[in-house]
Amino acid sequence: MDATGDIEAKFKAFAIPRGSLGRLEELAMVYASIKGTVDCTIRHKKIFTMAGDHGVVEEGVSAFPQQVTRQMVQNFIDGRAAINVLARHIGAKVIVVDCGVASYLQLQPGLKIRKIGLGTKNIAVEPAMSREEAVRSIEAGIELVEEERKEGVDIIGTGDMGIANTTPSSALLSVLGGMDVVAATGRGAGLDEGLLQRKMAVIKKAIDINQPNRHDPIDVLAKVGGYEIGGIAGLCLGAARYRIPIVLDGFISTAGALIADALEPKVNKYLIASHVSAEKGHKMMLKLLNKNPILDLNMRLGEGTGAALGINLVEAGVRLLHEMATFQEAGVSEPNLK
Amino acid sequence: MDATGDIEAKFKAFAIPRGSLGRLEELAMVYASIKGTVDCTIRHKKIFTMAGDHGVVEEGVSAFPQQVTRQMVQNFIDGRAAINVLARHIGAKVIVVDCGVASYLQLQPGLKIRKIGLGTKNIAVEPAMSREEAVRSIEAGIELVEEERKEGVDIIGTGDMGIANTTPSSALLSVLGGMDVVAATGRGAGLDEGLLQRKMAVIKKAIDINQPNRHDPIDVLAKVGGYEIGGIAGLCLGAARYRIPIVLDGFISTAGALIADALEPKVNKYLIASHVSAEKGHKMMLKLLNKNPILDLNMRLGEGTGAALGINLVEAGVRLLHEMATFQEAGVSEPNLK
Repeated sequence: MDATGDIEAKFKAFAIPRGSLGRLEELAMVYASIKGTVDCTIRHKKIFTMAGDHGVVEEGVSAFPQQVTRQMVQNFIDGRAAINVLARHIGAKVIVVDCGVASYLQLQPGLKIRKIGLGTKNIAVEPAMSREEAVRSIEAGIELVEEERKEGVDIIGTGDMGIANTTPSSALLSVLGGMDVVAATGRGAGLDEGLLQRKMAVIKKAIDINQPNRHDPIDVLAKVGGYEIGGIAGLCLGAARYRIPIVLDGFISTAGALIADALEPKVNKYLIASHVSAEKGHKMMLKLLNKNPILDLNMRLGEGTGAALGINLVEAGVRLLHEMATFQEAGVSEPNLK
Repeated sequence: MDATGDIEAKFKAFAIPRGSLGRLEELAMVYASIKGTVDCTIRHKKIFTMAGDHGVVEEGVSAFPQQVTRQMVQNFIDGRAAINVLARHIGAKVIVVDCGVASYLQLQPGLKIRKIGLGTKNIAVEPAMSREEAVRSIEAGIELVEEERKEGVDIIGTGDMGIANTTPSSALLSVLGGMDVVAATGRGAGLDEGLLQRKMAVIKKAIDINQPNRHDPIDVLAKVGGYEIGGIAGLCLGAARYRIPIVLDGFISTAGALIADALEPKVNKYLIASHVSAEKGHKMMLKLLNKNPILDLNMRLGEGTGAALGINLVEAGVRLLHEMATFQEAGVSEPNLK
């Protein structure tokens, strides 16, 4: 099933200087290797925007009130948020999922309800969720991939929405990466210096009180994670299970990927890092996954916005692989030196 | 005509954390400022792939034979090259221009003939072209913008094709940037160490023999430039003249932009740098223009491939500006801290 040799041969035959398409060739290579054939295209692009709330918001770790999570979920459903605009721009579908918003959302077209709980507990006081809930949040992500697969999905993008969710994500990075909280914690949606200090103290307290076992990823997710983060981990596992390339968004999505990667290292080859977020710590997460992000646009919104742009570049690479003429086809002379 | 204030206000009102769309906001800002209104869209995208030959090829400075220029021009017209694929991907039109290919090309749909000469002279021996030809090559570029403007053009991308054209481009960089030839010269389409040394020696000789006056950009273009490079300089001048944002491709396109910028510094605000090429010296060119490239994908193909990807990201920014809901429209609570 490894088509790498074929793809390299095809790129060598194209009427371009060897290697001159840089990372577009690399992206085509990753995609085609996963698909197991050089003769691949991208038609169905789906971005999962996974929403959940976080009890730790009551510690004052976010610049926004909790209700913004459900308000933004409605904005996604209405098609008026940044992720909707970018998904239209690249021709992808957005699938909005309630993984654990803190209120009951109205059933409506365009929303999938896979609610594990009404927001997590406050991790500065107790575990975010039970071990069973952590497992269920991951399973929900795997099942979402299974469902979409029936309607066709060639590539997946991840996304998130959840007020305060950089706090559990930094906690996950600190625990799974064995890193100091200070190095793993950033300003999220825009904290000033004082609130950043408070956030760091809250994360330290959460780790101290809950004592997550870094060698047990489910334990870490349960104690200092979040429902949408578990859901994203499930998306990664589901994508790998069905050999579907999955393009990671930013800080929260990559926290989910860290859980999946820790549970099953075989997941890693299906993961593509779309961008490096402006959120401190994201670079370190990508390093832990050994991924080189495609874009560096100083973005830090989440929702799947970085993933949308990344998918578009993967598609560019795959289209080149599919549509370019070779030296022979185009009647172009090959290099006469070296 | 400066809409910057309006655009900043609009981005502040959007239901996203302030500044979280990073460089996409910046690109929307640049585009809308040039258009002079926050209420702008992008419909007509046109990429000019400017072709020309270079007498200096006889010094053995390229890995490819000269005939590849016209063969690739045919490949562009046939729609089978990388630029065609990427232009289709982003919904842009490619305009192929013969600025000075070394043979007579068949008249055919999809090709504009603005030939100044049958390839330049060998700059290691004599000036590339006369001063009059240099002026005409620039005028041809300006006129191309004028022509396309009648059919509608919201944004322009630049591109190039010309075997050996990194040699004059490095010479231009060395002269206009006051830089050592070694720092300005790279491996082009793939030279080994020995050929790279030869290329550097040829460029030194060309500057030595022709003595271009760095304070006279037309003189520099005439003595060590190229027809397609002059054409690209003209595109930049034409774009600025009609207030059309112009997205630069890589090394050769930016050499053309350096000429335009030196002729008329007001051009600078209309230039957008799509990517930093893997070609050594491109970073320095961008620094001279004070531009921060959007992408870094290790590409070095030319044709307009980087410009296509850059245009796509400018369009993403502009669509966000146009289509996103504000806090108020979406009923989303604003930050309650700071």
